Amino acid sequence: MTDVIAEKVARLLPAMIVQRRDLHKHPEPGWTEFRTSAIISKRLSELGYKLTRGKDAVVKDSMMGAPSDAALKQEQERAIRQGADPELVRDMEGGLTGLWADMEFKGGKGPKFALRFDMDSNDVIETEDPEHRPNKEGFASVNHGAMHACGHDGHVSIGLAVAELLADMKDELKGSVRLIFQPAEEGVRGAGPMVDAGCVKNVDIIVGTHISFQADKTGMIICGTRGFLATTKWDVDFTGKSAHAGAAPHEGKNALLAACAATTNMHAIARHGDGITRITVGRLEGGQGRNIIPAHAHLAMETRGLTSELDDYMTGECRRIIEAAALMWDCSYNIKVMGGTKSGEPTPDMVEQAMKVATSMPAFTEVVGIKDFGASEDYSHMMSAVQANGGKGIYVQVGSTRTAGHHNDHFDFEENDMVVAAEFLVKLVRSYLG
Amino acid sequence: MTDVIAEKVARLLPAMIVQRRDLHKHPEPGWTEFRTSAIISKRLSELGYKLTRGKDAVVKDSMMGAPSDAALKQEQERAIRQGADPELVRDMEGGLTGLWADMEFKGGKGPKFALRFDMDSNDVIETEDPEHRPNKEGFASVNHGAMHACGHDGHVSIGLAVAELLADMKDELKGSVRLIFQPAEEGVRGAGPMVDAGCVKNVDIIVGTHISFQADKTGMIICGTRGFLATTKWDVDFTGKSAHAGAAPHEGKNALLAACAATTNMHAIARHGDGITRITVGRLEGGQGRNIIPAHAHLAMETRGLTSELDDYMTGECRRIIEAAALMWDCSYNIKVMGGTKSGEPTPDMVEQAMKVATSMPAFTEVVGIKDFGASEDYSHMMSAVQANGGKGIYVQVGSTRTAGHHNDHFDFEENDMVVAAEFLVKLVRSYLG
Amino acid sequence: MTDVIAEKVARLLPAMIVQRRDLHKHPEPGWTEFRTSAIISKRLSELGYKLTRGKDAVVKDSMMGAPSDAALKQEQERAIRQGADPELVRDMEGGLTGLWADMEFKGGKGPKFALRFDMDSNDVIETEDPEHRPNKEGFASVNHGAMHACGHDGHVSIGLAVAELLADMKDELKGSVRLIFQPAEEGVRGAGPMVDAGCVKNVDIIVGTHISFQADKTGMIICGTRGFLATTKWDVDFTGKSAHAGAAPHEGKNALLAACAATTNMHAIARHGDGITRITVGRLEGGQGRNIIPAHAHLAMETRGLTSELDDYMTGECRRIIEAAALMWDCSYNIKVMGGTKSGEPTPDMVEQAMKVATSMPAFTEVVGIKDFGASEDYSHMMSAVQANGGKGIYVQVGSTRTAGHHNDHFDFEENDMVVAAEFLVKLVRSYLG
Amino acid sequence: MTDVIAEKVARLLPAMIVQRRDLHKHPEPGWTEFRTSAIISKRLSELGYKLTRGKDAVVKDSMMGAPSDAALKQEQERAIRQGADPELVRDMEGGLTGLWADMEFKGGKGPKFALRFDMDSNDVIETEDPEHRPNKEGFASVNHGAMHACGHDGHVSIGLAVAELLADMKDELKGSVRLIFQPAEEGVRGAGPMVDAGCVKNVDIIVGTHISFQADKTGMIICGTRGFLATTKWDVDFTGKSAHAGAAPHEGKNALLAACAATTNMHAIARHGDGITRITVGRLEGGQGRNIIPAHAHLAMETRGLTSELDDYMTGECRRIIEAAALMWDCSYNIKVMGGTKSGEPTPDMVEQAMKVATSMPAFTEVVGIKDFGASEDYSHMMSAVQANGGKGIYVQVGSTRTAGHHNDHFDFEENDMVVAAEFLVKLVRSYLG
Repeated sequence: MTDVIAEKVARLLPAMIVQRRDLHKHPEPGWTEFRTSAIISKRLSELGYKLTRGKDAVVKDSMMGAPSDAALKQEQERAIRQGADPELVRDMEGGLTGLWADMEFKGGKGPKFALRFDMDSNDVIETEDPEHRPNKEGFASVNHGAMHACGHDGHVSIGLAVAELLADMKDELKGSVRLIFQPAEEGVRGAGPMVDAGCVKNVDIIVGTHISFQADKTGMIICGTRGFLATTKWDVDFTGKSAHAGAAPHEGKNALLAACAATTNMHAIARHGDGITRITVGRLEGGQGRNIIPAHAHLAMETRGLTSELDDYMTGECRRIIEAAALMWDCSYNIKVMGGTKSGEPTPDMVEQAMKVATSMPAFTEVVGIKDFGASEDYSHMMSAVQANGGKGIYVQVGSTRTAGHHNDHFDFEENDMVVAAEFLVKLVRSYLG
Repeated sequence: MTDVIAEKVARLLPAMIVQRRDLHKHPEPGWTEFRTSAIISKRLSELGYKLTRGKDAVVKDSMMGAPSDAALKQEQERAIRQGADPELVRDMEGGLTGLWADMEFKGGKGPKFALRFDMDSNDVIETEDPEHRPNKEGFASVNHGAMHACGHDGHVSIGLAVAELLADMKDELKGSVRLIFQPAEEGVRGAGPMVDAGCVKNVDIIVGTHISFQADKTGMIICGTRGFLATTKWDVDFTGKSAHAGAAPHEGKNALLAACAATTNMHAIARHGDGITRITVGRLEGGQGRNIIPAHAHLAMETRGLTSELDDYMTGECRRIIEAAALMWDCSYNIKVMGGTKSGEPTPDMVEQAMKVATSMPAFTEVVGIKDFGASEDYSHMMSAVQANGGKGIYVQVGSTRTAGHHNDHFDFEENDMVVAAEFLVKLVRSYLG
Repeated sequence: MTDVIAEKVARLLPAMIVQRRDLHKHPEPGWTEFRTSAIISKRLSELGYKLTRGKDAVVKDSMMGAPSDAALKQEQERAIRQGADPELVRDMEGGLTGLWADMEFKGGKGPKFALRFDMDSNDVIETEDPEHRPNKEGFASVNHGAMHACGHDGHVSIGLAVAELLADMKDELKGSVRLIFQPAEEGVRGAGPMVDAGCVKNVDIIVGTHISFQADKTGMIICGTRGFLATTKWDVDFTGKSAHAGAAPHEGKNALLAACAATTNMHAIARHGDGITRITVGRLEGGQGRNIIPAHAHLAMETRGLTSELDDYMTGECRRIIEAAALMWDCSYNIKVMGGTKSGEPTPDMVEQAMKVATSMPAFTEVVGIKDFGASEDYSHMMSAVQANGGKGIYVQVGSTRTAGHHNDHFDFEENDMVVAAEFLVKLVRSYLG
Repeated sequence: MTDVIAEKVARLLPAMIVQRRDLHKHPEPGWTEFRTSAIISKRLSELGYKLTRGKDAVVKDSMMGAPSDAALKQEQERAIRQGADPELVRDMEGGLTGLWADMEFKGGKGPKFALRFDMDSNDVIETEDPEHRPNKEGFASVNHGAMHACGHDGHVSIGLAVAELLADMKDELKGSVRLIFQPAEEGVRGAGPMVDAGCVKNVDIIVGTHISFQADKTGMIICGTRGFLATTKWDVDFTGKSAHAGAAPHEGKNALLAACAATTNMHAIARHGDGITRITVGRLEGGQGRNIIPAHAHLAMETRGLTSELDDYMTGECRRIIEAAALMWDCSYNIKVMGGTKSGEPTPDMVEQAMKVATSMPAFTEVVGIKDFGASEDYSHMMSAVQANGGKGIYVQVGSTRTAGHHNDHFDFEENDMVVAAEFLVKLVRSYLG
């Protein structure tokens, strides 16, 4: 029987590559996955899944860090221009791009097994290096400023392959499956509003997947990721007063110097004796013309901590430093929470089950049990919700050799590994529902 | 005879206000004054002036700090959309928006008298305060991010009124007049390329004008501005390396921290014992996504000095600090010169002549001779060129009460004062050519 | 037999307290423990130990971070003024304050068991808070700027009590014991020069001890400390040029601004994704008079890392930032290595043995096996040397409730716990040599 | 008659050099001029002047920025060790080192003419460069950390020569003379307490003198210094909380990072459009041991402005930045005013008189009238007080070629120029009292 799955999934590879490259060429940042979501919806309908979409799948009031209405409108139009079904796009108005797809199996009663895939791209300008494969083979991003630099294009392709394989096994399996396609994983904003809409209600088992990352070599798999960093995402605005830089610089209140003082000093917050912390001001934009004292500056930043307490320490320090930086340059300030998530731990017996499945696959030459993550993923929000209801969950990293680190503008992975990931996930489902 | 001019110009006021408000509503930043320049050209032709425009009026290779071709194209299209004559716009392709207009008088031989007016707007977002008159009376900027916050809209209106009045006096005056309409005064970029094209060749006398500024009350006039600050305009780019802010912050090279270190420390350069200096980073933009170590940052900055030596001191310090900031965060950097001008002094006997004319006008209740400027104006480039050829020149500030400082988003001036400025300029011309 | 040791050590408590308070009142920072070392030497001679002192116990060329000759001379004189035997002090000239004391037991052949105690105080100004016990009971530091804020005064008292108890058991035990009294543990400078002099040559088993620290409650003991942070200690000097701050600030080269830029930016070095790092500029001193541009600045700083690689990452970043800060303000710089140590891990079977001994003592209510340290201790240098020769070693933290954190100016511990520590150490020795 | 004075003063040169070198070797910073003041007192008594000293010459409650009692005591003892008369020193206890000396002339009634000389040294470590003349000829400072780097040693020598010459002319001159020897000019602390004690009461004419400075070439003289900068001197303390830098850096409150943020950002305060400003943190000292989060930091700083309003702008900005820097790192702060003075302008007719006297002396090859100072001198306090009572005053800079800028550790001047200064002053007095 193993052979059957392996064989089937291998035959899907060419289509998976085509699919992944089409997504790579048309990346869509968090909450603007209109085209991506429309493609998924269409395909899953064809395969016989029952869809939950739009306002039924995402609670609008829980959304954090959504683009402006104008920007959303523009991206919707682009999605349609790039071939998305206008009717499907309309249902997602306002950025409601998440969806889930259910299938009841005919093999009898059994648990509800959920798989989560993320869809969004990064705010990265893809390199123009001609050696970068997407440039060489013509599938580099055509949406300037957006790039699939974290492999979510691959995740969607894997999800669609898994969907097809499980649909094929409809009569054979028992229980049911739910495929969750999440928007806005970058910035850990998408999971919350989908959990609030019920995406993990009655789910007994859940698995989340990432390609490469810590499993940075083809042939490797990490079955029990733990140590998801708690994180907080802020937008900060400083407001001062503009003035003529030549004639009356003293009449200005320099919001840019406030932003620089905040940025530098927040990075200098004392490392915490109890564990890992992070601070990053990922973007700063301030001032208007060259000869005008800057009256405004904007920061996009985040903190992280191994535990929620450590993240709280960081946000506490940051809040005080931001207030002080504003005072330092006689400005006012505003902090807006744009995202955030808590920590999470895998269910031990499910880690073992995953290791058993992985060990049975010749594709895996290195099977790792538990590994500290050192990063954030709002999948931990879904997993914790399942566990809180007595369910179990893990987060799996499927190995893939890559050309550069995640979020780097040269990022690319080994496309063949998508097949291995799909095979593993289907076999993991079968090990519970078979 | 005085009465005649005063009377005539007073009758022009309603039209001047309409003109100024139309320009205020459609501000065009440096090198994109397509619509403004087209309006001026059309009007001056009607009045019988001989025009020099496009590539004859601006040497393309001397242009500094021009927008990208794409941006120029966009602004050209906007100008046409907002009513500019497409044919006139075409001649200005590439930002060649400067022009001059000549008229030979019939009263006999005499000197060539030039008047210079600037046309560009600022990179300021106009306030949405409903009390701001342009909002209240419906002529606020419709070009987001651009605003006439320095009164150049008024300067153009004054220039057109002066043109009309002088044309009326064609038979009476001797010698000739040249009206120079300069682009890109903000950033002191426009004068050089026009001087290189010959705009002050054979000019004997020149006057430049600014409304309000140091003459910040209606009824005041400053006849002999001196102490124009020498200035240098740079764009600076820092390039580092992006990395995942959670998993591998140590793999990044943080270009934003380099930019913050440069900005803060450049503002801390020692004040110079020999005189006034200035340093302003007017704009900083760095980083991409919130959770990515910033791989790039961009500064738009300027230095100034009472003398060219003092400005050189500032640029020398800045260059070293920028290099060091790049080293500090393991980044590379690039400095691009975007503009700059030298100092300038008024011709004493022309200051006296201007004071005599001003004193004769009841509109002026406070006539100031010499005053230190403490700011930069690339008119000083034109004036110095005239003086170098044995000519004379001054820069006049005509008083106007205003609502906020120049370059402030609440800036507005007293429109009636445009009449006073036009009257003064015509009478000054007549005092030499009458 | 247990009773006998417990009973004996309990009877030593009053003398231990007197001893500890005398040391607390006369704290001596690293390499100046002249009085402390003289007291120890005298006592151990009386007890029949064979001493190795002065140049035989410390290799002068290996010493890092020693005070200047003038300062050493001053401290030697102070030691004598405060009652130290002048002859003993003379042997330690140049800061050679380390010593070790050997005793051969008569119970037969057996391993050589070493115990290490540190002697130095901190550069802390003791609080004047009247509620602080040393103030209330009259044993606060009389050496301004020096304070036993890490409990090394207690360590010496424990060491002397252990010496007395083991001397009492001379006939009963086999093998031999070596008591190592180390200078300059603060700044991790003292272990290296003593190891170079042979202090752990032929040692089979070694134990190091700290009171309180992570065992922050009376009744607790941690038997297997691991995760000693590798660390590097630097002194950094920036040299610029002085100038008159009013008349000619531009003629100066501001070494203090260089030091501030270095300090702030070093604290902002990216946290490392692979594990714990630390950076501290513990002291900065720069400038001369208020109205003089500072021509010199001095930093005393340290980095740490969970592994030597992580510490190397920090020193690499710091070196570049220091170079850049000097360039930024046109200064020269110099880095001098003042100390440093590598990581270290406990021997597992010795941890178990220690846990067995601890569990047998009713004084311990919480016996912890392995615990991550998150700090540096150059005992790890001695322990690693013993292990490299096939020996075994651990570092034990004996619980004590304290009034404030280590290195805080309010630090004090529960003196009764010295008895518990001494009892444990003697019983640990007996478990191997009994 | 001119010849007589010139001849007499020339014969004093060898003694003046000896005197100046003795003072150079024994520099005494502000408020500790015990030895200097004792030498002056003794000599003036011998010459027949009537002295006002100690508490009669300095109002203790008006003193700013005095050293601690312990430091004053130490310096008093040093003065005595270095040969000062113990009885004279006793009168100056607490730093009351200022004095004035009066002589009534016998030539008839006339105005009271005051001359002011300053006595204090700088907080500069004199260079060890063997080419520096004080090193080469054996009169370099023996008081480490103190150096006459501003020429006040020369001023005292000039003052004593003037005293001798005027005493010689007792019968010939009319009116009276007062020689004021002021302490603590550095930091502009000494003038106020002497004015409060009455040092310029009933004075009709006053002259202050500086050697070299803006008159940086032998042969030059500046008769009418104007534009004394107003200035404010502060000591600032930041208090945080210490913690172990390895184990618990997050428990600290880093006062040193607060001091660095304050220092860097204060230097970045916007230059003022209305005129000259200055900001200098001349000294920063923070932290204790290398491995302890710094709980304390101390700044010695000053601001200046061309007018008192400009200095107020600077202190206002600084106060807010200091408050913000403390908040930024969760510290408290304290600001202590240590000194300060206001602006001052010369009396025009006295400038002319001085120019006449200077022009008559062949030693002067370049006689300058009015020159902007761009620095602070609390002589302006005395001069303003005289002028406020209807008197007149100037500040004269007597040319001298020097080896390095004032306050530089290589500073030295041309000793022969002391003769020129003395001759000029005596002739200026004679021009009024002759």
